[in-house]
Amino acid sequence: MSKGVKIVTIGGGSSYTPELMEGFIKRYDELPVREIWLVDIEDGKEKLETVGEMAQRMWDASPYDVKIHLTLDRREALQDADFVTTQFRVGLLNARVKDERIPLSYGMVGQETNGAGGIFKAFRTIPVILGIVEDMKELCPNAWLINFTNPSGMVTDAIIRYGKWEKVLGLCNVPVGAMMAEPELIGKTLDELVYSFAGLNHFHWHRVKDLRGNDVTSEIIDKMYGDEDSGIPANIHDIPFFKEQLKQMNMIPCGYHRYYYRYEEMLAHMLEEYNDPNVGTRAQQVKQTEAELFELYKDPNLNVKPEQLSKRGGAHYSDAACETIASIYANKNTHIVVSTKNNGAVPDLAPDDVVEVSAYVGAAGARPIAFGSFQPAERGWLQLMKNMELTVEQAAVTGDSGLALQAFTMNPLIPSGQTAKRVLDELLVAHKKYLPQFADKIAELEAAGLTVKDEVAKNLN
Amino acid sequence: MSKGVKIVTIGGGSSYTPELMEGFIKRYDELPVREIWLVDIEDGKEKLETVGEMAQRMWDASPYDVKIHLTLDRREALQDADFVTTQFRVGLLNARVKDERIPLSYGMVGQETNGAGGIFKAFRTIPVILGIVEDMKELCPNAWLINFTNPSGMVTDAIIRYGKWEKVLGLCNVPVGAMMAEPELIGKTLDELVYSFAGLNHFHWHRVKDLRGNDVTSEIIDKMYGDEDSGIPANIHDIPFFKEQLKQMNMIPCGYHRYYYRYEEMLAHMLEEYNDPNVGTRAQQVKQTEAELFELYKDPNLNVKPEQLSKRGGAHYSDAACETIASIYANKNTHIVVSTKNNGAVPDLAPDDVVEVSAYVGAAGARPIAFGSFQPAERGWLQLMKNMELTVEQAAVTGDSGLALQAFTMNPLIPSGQTAKRVLDELLVAHKKYLPQFADKIAELEAAGLTVKDEVAKNLN
Amino acid sequence: MSKGVKIVTIGGGSSYTPELMEGFIKRYDELPVREIWLVDIEDGKEKLETVGEMAQRMWDASPYDVKIHLTLDRREALQDADFVTTQFRVGLLNARVKDERIPLSYGMVGQETNGAGGIFKAFRTIPVILGIVEDMKELCPNAWLINFTNPSGMVTDAIIRYGKWEKVLGLCNVPVGAMMAEPELIGKTLDELVYSFAGLNHFHWHRVKDLRGNDVTSEIIDKMYGDEDSGIPANIHDIPFFKEQLKQMNMIPCGYHRYYYRYEEMLAHMLEEYNDPNVGTRAQQVKQTEAELFELYKDPNLNVKPEQLSKRGGAHYSDAACETIASIYANKNTHIVVSTKNNGAVPDLAPDDVVEVSAYVGAAGARPIAFGSFQPAERGWLQLMKNMELTVEQAAVTGDSGLALQAFTMNPLIPSGQTAKRVLDELLVAHKKYLPQFADKIAELEAAGLTVKDEVAKNLN
Amino acid sequence: MSKGVKIVTIGGGSSYTPELMEGFIKRYDELPVREIWLVDIEDGKEKLETVGEMAQRMWDASPYDVKIHLTLDRREALQDADFVTTQFRVGLLNARVKDERIPLSYGMVGQETNGAGGIFKAFRTIPVILGIVEDMKELCPNAWLINFTNPSGMVTDAIIRYGKWEKVLGLCNVPVGAMMAEPELIGKTLDELVYSFAGLNHFHWHRVKDLRGNDVTSEIIDKMYGDEDSGIPANIHDIPFFKEQLKQMNMIPCGYHRYYYRYEEMLAHMLEEYNDPNVGTRAQQVKQTEAELFELYKDPNLNVKPEQLSKRGGAHYSDAACETIASIYANKNTHIVVSTKNNGAVPDLAPDDVVEVSAYVGAAGARPIAFGSFQPAERGWLQLMKNMELTVEQAAVTGDSGLALQAFTMNPLIPSGQTAKRVLDELLVAHKKYLPQFADKIAELEAAGLTVKDEVAKNLN
Repeated sequence: MSKGVKIVTIGGGSSYTPELMEGFIKRYDELPVREIWLVDIEDGKEKLETVGEMAQRMWDASPYDVKIHLTLDRREALQDADFVTTQFRVGLLNARVKDERIPLSYGMVGQETNGAGGIFKAFRTIPVILGIVEDMKELCPNAWLINFTNPSGMVTDAIIRYGKWEKVLGLCNVPVGAMMAEPELIGKTLDELVYSFAGLNHFHWHRVKDLRGNDVTSEIIDKMYGDEDSGIPANIHDIPFFKEQLKQMNMIPCGYHRYYYRYEEMLAHMLEEYNDPNVGTRAQQVKQTEAELFELYKDPNLNVKPEQLSKRGGAHYSDAACETIASIYANKNTHIVVSTKNNGAVPDLAPDDVVEVSAYVGAAGARPIAFGSFQPAERGWLQLMKNMELTVEQAAVTGDSGLALQAFTMNPLIPSGQTAKRVLDELLVAHKKYLPQFADKIAELEAAGLTVKDEVAKNLN
Repeated sequence: MSKGVKIVTIGGGSSYTPELMEGFIKRYDELPVREIWLVDIEDGKEKLETVGEMAQRMWDASPYDVKIHLTLDRREALQDADFVTTQFRVGLLNARVKDERIPLSYGMVGQETNGAGGIFKAFRTIPVILGIVEDMKELCPNAWLINFTNPSGMVTDAIIRYGKWEKVLGLCNVPVGAMMAEPELIGKTLDELVYSFAGLNHFHWHRVKDLRGNDVTSEIIDKMYGDEDSGIPANIHDIPFFKEQLKQMNMIPCGYHRYYYRYEEMLAHMLEEYNDPNVGTRAQQVKQTEAELFELYKDPNLNVKPEQLSKRGGAHYSDAACETIASIYANKNTHIVVSTKNNGAVPDLAPDDVVEVSAYVGAAGARPIAFGSFQPAERGWLQLMKNMELTVEQAAVTGDSGLALQAFTMNPLIPSGQTAKRVLDELLVAHKKYLPQFADKIAELEAAGLTVKDEVAKNLN
Repeated sequence: MSKGVKIVTIGGGSSYTPELMEGFIKRYDELPVREIWLVDIEDGKEKLETVGEMAQRMWDASPYDVKIHLTLDRREALQDADFVTTQFRVGLLNARVKDERIPLSYGMVGQETNGAGGIFKAFRTIPVILGIVEDMKELCPNAWLINFTNPSGMVTDAIIRYGKWEKVLGLCNVPVGAMMAEPELIGKTLDELVYSFAGLNHFHWHRVKDLRGNDVTSEIIDKMYGDEDSGIPANIHDIPFFKEQLKQMNMIPCGYHRYYYRYEEMLAHMLEEYNDPNVGTRAQQVKQTEAELFELYKDPNLNVKPEQLSKRGGAHYSDAACETIASIYANKNTHIVVSTKNNGAVPDLAPDDVVEVSAYVGAAGARPIAFGSFQPAERGWLQLMKNMELTVEQAAVTGDSGLALQAFTMNPLIPSGQTAKRVLDELLVAHKKYLPQFADKIAELEAAGLTVKDEVAKNLN
Repeated sequence: MSKGVKIVTIGGGSSYTPELMEGFIKRYDELPVREIWLVDIEDGKEKLETVGEMAQRMWDASPYDVKIHLTLDRREALQDADFVTTQFRVGLLNARVKDERIPLSYGMVGQETNGAGGIFKAFRTIPVILGIVEDMKELCPNAWLINFTNPSGMVTDAIIRYGKWEKVLGLCNVPVGAMMAEPELIGKTLDELVYSFAGLNHFHWHRVKDLRGNDVTSEIIDKMYGDEDSGIPANIHDIPFFKEQLKQMNMIPCGYHRYYYRYEEMLAHMLEEYNDPNVGTRAQQVKQTEAELFELYKDPNLNVKPEQLSKRGGAHYSDAACETIASIYANKNTHIVVSTKNNGAVPDLAPDDVVEVSAYVGAAGARPIAFGSFQPAERGWLQLMKNMELTVEQAAVTGDSGLALQAFTMNPLIPSGQTAKRVLDELLVAHKKYLPQFADKIAELEAAGLTVKDEVAKNLN
């Protein structure tokens, strides 16, 4: 890296790319970037060019001489990379629309990383990421892979477990959001608090101590309920947890726990949006936002990240990625919450499971902080969810539809039974193009005449 | 025990008692009973007398001279007992009606041992059983406690964990039913097969081998689907599992797994019965059956167990208890599926958790067979359910309503949210008389004017 | 097996074979043997013929028509076998002499299954047994492998772990000896007691209960010290344990624990025999006994197992093997202490470690009884020893001399340091012929001029 | 702590105290000390006064106004303390002389923290530290306890396990020494390397990575053997490990591992010193050094830590304590190797065991880094040693001499047998004054006429 750092971003045509550029520009002093390669696929070529030109303008407006390379040839880009970031979406937003609408058409949670939708996103993504890892072994065996492709926890776990690639960290913006919002609730700054996160991606809890070593988690919980605005990520509907439950556990769950702790209300809200043709599901909303963003990016005078990107939902994701890369490069030992191999940090799970935990990130990668055992209630949830993840990953790798059914059955957001099976089957058929491992099962379903009920999903390519 | 065995049955006024008597009579050669004490409470006095006289008639018709003692004084009965069996129901069938109807009135599973109803049965039962254990420590410290009070797994776990009483076995008739029904499906007798059960009470799986050591589980599964009559206990609605799922796990789940694997259909069936005033919930049906049984028992000429008892649902329960007692007494090393301390038999759970497993039962009690680790799908379910049980037990012992809410939230049969919380609150108020540990919370709910919605439940004492 | 059972004994030329024949003859009713194949190697041809003829005479004197086949062609014998027993010794007794004398020549324990000698026996045996397993996969994939080749625990573990062969049980006569000797100490018969063994081969403990379920371990310990003759296997010097220690643990260790609990005295005794040219080490004594036995076997009139065989040391080993085979064949569910996959029976070790435990043996193989966790003292020993076994096995399979040094260093019977390293090196050179996996290291040692100090060992082929 | 920090040092009369003062003086900017209380017992009064005056001179020579309080009244000192450090030695150096000479008189390792001596130091120390903890609960419930009284690991474990006090960290200077010595071996500074330590106090290993994330452990090992001076603490004889062994494990053991990996040579060296009246055991040498140090401290002109203290053996211990306290106070998140509750950091041990691991130390105490599982060889050692520690602690708390024998038997530095038992008995009698928990056993031994063989030890008070 003596001549500067080479960064490769797979899914470089994403609307998030400007945030990534901003993150690199502001950290240039500690992370001297030499070149950035944005990689995308044929279907994303136009977006890649738009956002690539925007990215180059951002660097040109900076004091630094960094060249943005745009390519559809992944292998060309990966050669000798120092850091590879992944932010691609197999099947683009249309696939997400299907992940959301098909379950919702049967009254079930339709969500990007949870429930049936999350399972199918894993089914589509894991085979692709394992292919990238094979390329990396050949072309850049010393590089770090910084994954923020969702479902980030399962994807990172599969990279280590099935890809046998250890130099990987999974990232998420949810912990960042909590650490930005909570301190002021109790009149503190983040520097005056010590955070400990542990669990799984989109399924973790945290505790907080002050500088005297006193636990202030309970104090934060109290304030969250005095002031209803509780720092939840924008892409989760703002329904509060039961205060009594939080006080009992003396931990703060992540926003996505609402799907599990307030299932009824979350589902009702999603169905309401689904049934309102003027609103639509989250992916449909995001498509609109994205279209607006790309319109902005086309402006040849725009050379800074536009404000509107923050509303996109994944704000801080890219910034977290830049901070992680800088921490590794400059051995900063920053406290970052990452998906990484457990190694015992969460003793309720196996040492080789990937977990999402507070870690100090530096030259040796993530050093996860041992969190200790959970109480039975959280332990039970955690063990269910991790084992569901393992079942999903195994189904994704083997294409075993029995395992897919097992994963559906154990997922807490999918009421088991014939409707669940129908949703599973429709999703298989709907995502046919991106699920070659399930080809036999899909052929069987198609031969039996199975079609997608939701009209919107059915008519998407 | 040189002068014969003294047996004490708590809840002796139960309609099951004649099956128990029959079981003892037919095993008299290996289990020389001297005296049997049937204990009940004031509210059950009439039934105790009816069934007690019936029991005495059964012994009088046998070649053996055994005296039945009837008492409302538990401590008098326990003195120097050799075996204590527990089959009581705190709050009688009316409590069960509430456990079923209150959740169903909000569209949730209302069941005796699963979901909200099962949790409340544990809340009522655990404090009572711990009191019995304290009496036993004083009055019959060498006795064995054979528990078949439901929820048998949680009750047995609480006896060991909180009561610090190790000489206890929990029983269930479900495995007995499977071993009676399945062999003929593949043209075998039970003697020609080797069964291995493991899991939790009402939440276990089994595998089967033949005498060549070959796994025949898959063969049984195939036959279960050729012939839809699959040997499921009468008190579970006969909805088949997904064959694809069973083939993938290569194990046979217990009948109660239908609530978890076919949630949609099981719930629909329960709601149908609930909504049909001519049918009613299971407890209402049982009340009818029980009334008929007690009418029969009143017949001074009846001195054998009537056929109708088999329809009661818990058939073979009492026989399993007799077989267990005889196996301990005569060191028979019989293969019996019992709830007992894990000790590693299910490595996916803690060694001191109570599990339900295949065991060889003899003079040293149950010697559980090490089953080995489960695959992720079953492991996740198992760990969730055991940790839910632990949360329920802790709530039952402490009266912490936050823990009760945690247990409700993690229970897979209770969709979380405000309705779940409402059901929890109504059940607390409805069972007030039997939940002294939750008195403060109940008082708070009553002060806020909370009442039970379901008219039938509301009007029960 | 409809036409009777085919049994193959590898190492069939062993002096133990007559005990094996006796065992099969007396169990013929439950185990209808059709043919027995005794397999040996070229070097053992003469003994094979002698003992083979003796074996045939034993059957001819019985009412049963069973043919003994003698062969040097293992693959011919294995074809369609039902049960394969292994009782071979790689390098014959001369290798054992080296295992004993080389360590003793440096003042260290020299023993067949413990310390440096046990490690080298594993190094020589594991590659050979893995070859047998490969043959079995091809020629008799449904057969059971009953191993009593020492070190039985490590060999059995390697068969499962590296050979991926699950139908195997490891046997030992030590538990049999304890169960034969102890009951009478407290005026009982074996039928009146319930034994629970757990640990590793030659490193297990047991507890005993009576038919009232009361623990009588402490009572047995007391009697062992009233009457010094304590039922220890003949091939272990009779030095008592510290009674205070046994009372504290409330378990009875196996005889081989003397090497660990009374190291000083055991070593002194061995050195005494080693230094006395009229006595010699155990292997030298056994060579004498064996020569006498084979003289007896040559007697064409002898057709029953001679009394002298009982003094051989491994008495009951072969009988235990016959009982195990009969239990599997006739689904007897006999309580037998076997080396088998843990599956959780000893929760202090990993589920896939082989342990030696009380098991019920029947058609499905061994069903190990869950023993539960040990107290810290025994747990520490157990975890050390199992991990040493794993290190030895890995060294045996890979030929990594660094791992061999690691195993030596952690073995409690080998004081670490330069002398230990010297003993390791001498053993490598001395066993060169049977350690092809260590060829490079041995060549290096020979090039450096390393020779064996002990004159007796040096001059053995 | 607004008015500055109150520090209490138990065993304040120690010769180490000047290093402690130096450490506080140089960190005053981040750790504003207000007052320091040096506590000692009557027997140490003279040394307390000498070193206390010396300490005050050091502060008086600094720019800071800090008052040193000297007291024999522990409770007076503890009132409202912020940090309590413990560096006392129950029985003073004479007790250590006995711990060393009595085992050596029978040819066994006699050492302060390992083998028989380490066990007895734990027996004497644990009851005293538990008394201190009880005082702290009452007088300074928010204080941190920084323990560097040996055996630091067992003492810290006992504080948490039996004292139920969680705000404690155990310290050791050995890791500091490694991190000071090793980097230059490969031409680096400490800042250019990432260290990961894990294991137990005086029984840990470490790995090292460079800033590219590459493992350089093997490179350091190579250099250690090119240059024999390998950065081992001064109080361990400089015998190198077997290079082949270190390369195999790819970790660097701590210096104390020499007792386990090079037992023969370490013992020979100790016996040589023991048998040379001009040298004597380590404690005898230290007594001499200490006497010289106290002579120096008496010099009213000395107001800086004298050079000679570095030769004392425990150099950097006190500095590590100061750094730890400053890190907590100023939330520095410094990488420090501490004895702390495992919480999963070493998955091969239980989550509630105390381990010694790399941790980030800040306001919330130590946040141990999850190290992951060890390979079998190290895992076996570690599990043995931790379980031995647990056995020692339990014996220390209960006074059960059977447990003491169990601990002796399993300790790898004590060859088991009658001599070991004799050493145990002599140590009990020799330390009678400080072992009230073993009073009954000692009385029994004295009644039987047992006396100490070693003349020097026998004649010490």
